[in-house]
Amino acid sequence: MTKNTKVNAAILIIGNEILSGRTQDTNTSTIALWLNSIGVKVQEVRVISDTEKVIVDTINELRKINDYVFTTGGIGPTHDDITAESISKAFKIDYEIHKEAFKILEAYYKPGEFNEGRQKMVMMPKNAKLILNPTSGAPGFNVENVFCLPGVPSILKSMLGGLKNEIIGGEPILSHTISLRTVESEIAKSLTNIQNKNKDVEIGSYPFFQAGKLGVSIVMRSEDQSRIDECSSQILNFVNEKKIEVVER
Amino acid sequence: MTKNTKVNAAILIIGNEILSGRTQDTNTSTIALWLNSIGVKVQEVRVISDTEKVIVDTINELRKINDYVFTTGGIGPTHDDITAESISKAFKIDYEIHKEAFKILEAYYKPGEFNEGRQKMVMMPKNAKLILNPTSGAPGFNVENVFCLPGVPSILKSMLGGLKNEIIGGEPILSHTISLRTVESEIAKSLTNIQNKNKDVEIGSYPFFQAGKLGVSIVMRSEDQSRIDECSSQILNFVNEKKIEVVER
Repeated sequence: MTKNTKVNAAILIIGNEILSGRTQDTNTSTIALWLNSIGVKVQEVRVISDTEKVIVDTINELRKINDYVFTTGGIGPTHDDITAESISKAFKIDYEIHKEAFKILEAYYKPGEFNEGRQKMVMMPKNAKLILNPTSGAPGFNVENVFCLPGVPSILKSMLGGLKNEIIGGEPILSHTISLRTVESEIAKSLTNIQNKNKDVEIGSYPFFQAGKLGVSIVMRSEDQSRIDECSSQILNFVNEKKIEVVER
Repeated sequence: MTKNTKVNAAILIIGNEILSGRTQDTNTSTIALWLNSIGVKVQEVRVISDTEKVIVDTINELRKINDYVFTTGGIGPTHDDITAESISKAFKIDYEIHKEAFKILEAYYKPGEFNEGRQKMVMMPKNAKLILNPTSGAPGFNVENVFCLPGVPSILKSMLGGLKNEIIGGEPILSHTISLRTVESEIAKSLTNIQNKNKDVEIGSYPFFQAGKLGVSIVMRSEDQSRIDECSSQILNFVNEKKIEVVER
């Protein structure tokens, strides 16, 4: 892959606790913002249960239609952590003790603390490449274009930096937001015209409530700053004509 | 469907703003908790872009393999709101002015305020059943087993109550949480034994950081309270034996 190619990714959140509503996922936003910054666009997110067949089938579907797949969750020491074994099955690779990971955790824990539960965390697909974990020792791993990260948000965040050289992105996706004190229906027609004239810029319109007042944020996204600037000025033109208050530009 | 049948659902979040990481989705958790309370289990969540073909294909896939599908987003007045038209295409139903919705919005707005932008919000699949919106007027709709809700969290929340009689759930899914002052690796083996002895109860293990201290929440889920009670007591047995502090039980 070279620069300027569109590079896309899928995020796969593995965990019954998200599906039950008990836990609010925040990893999607963390990973997506980071990927954007290195020129990778998230095409799709899926949240699935801790069920082997579902994980295997979803991984095999997503890895073929995306440049990268990032999974979160299911790589801890308990019985419901089945991501590593499922990835092994998806790729038909042996699931075994990863010697490098074993050495890392053996050194990380005090003597006697590297118990059976913790040793499960070094079971991985054979020859998986490790993703180092500066927070809590236990590494993630990657097989081909699939990168497996933990579910705990703070640990996941700390591991993304180490991945920067592993992911080859395209041009960073730039965005600019104009926020207005108005409602969507007042600007819908003008915005449609601008989107039609600028099909290469993705224009989104998002109502918000802030300090008890209604507003709309218009978000422009493109790899080309000059195209965003052009759209911005077209939008500000009609905003001025309509005498709409600009909150942020 | 009668009670005691397993009833499942998929949630489909439609919106580039979630995929870009700009907006943190909270609707999944809102809908999932509400569905649990009426005996519907969320099997899968997907987040997809505001792209017609993607919406049509995903709807047609999900509605066949789930009892219910709930979509959020894309039913406002702007150019990027294409859910209603996409649902029409998925079901091969005409996309047209919905007379009942028109009457509702005509009465909702002051004379002269029901402008072209707002009128887009009454374009729906022919004969769609409306989902009333007590917050901001514009209704959602449902076609067969697909229910389309707005993306704005506060509006979505206000609309769920009105759906209660439309959704036929199974037995409510009950859950109980035991939180311990320990780490997962200390309890992994005992928990695996308990899961193996109680395969009909879904047992999840989730590490947490609270007030600077590590802990683990064990969540048991089942339709049968007596099975949850039995698991709880087995867990508390080994917890007592290991002299682990119980934070919540």
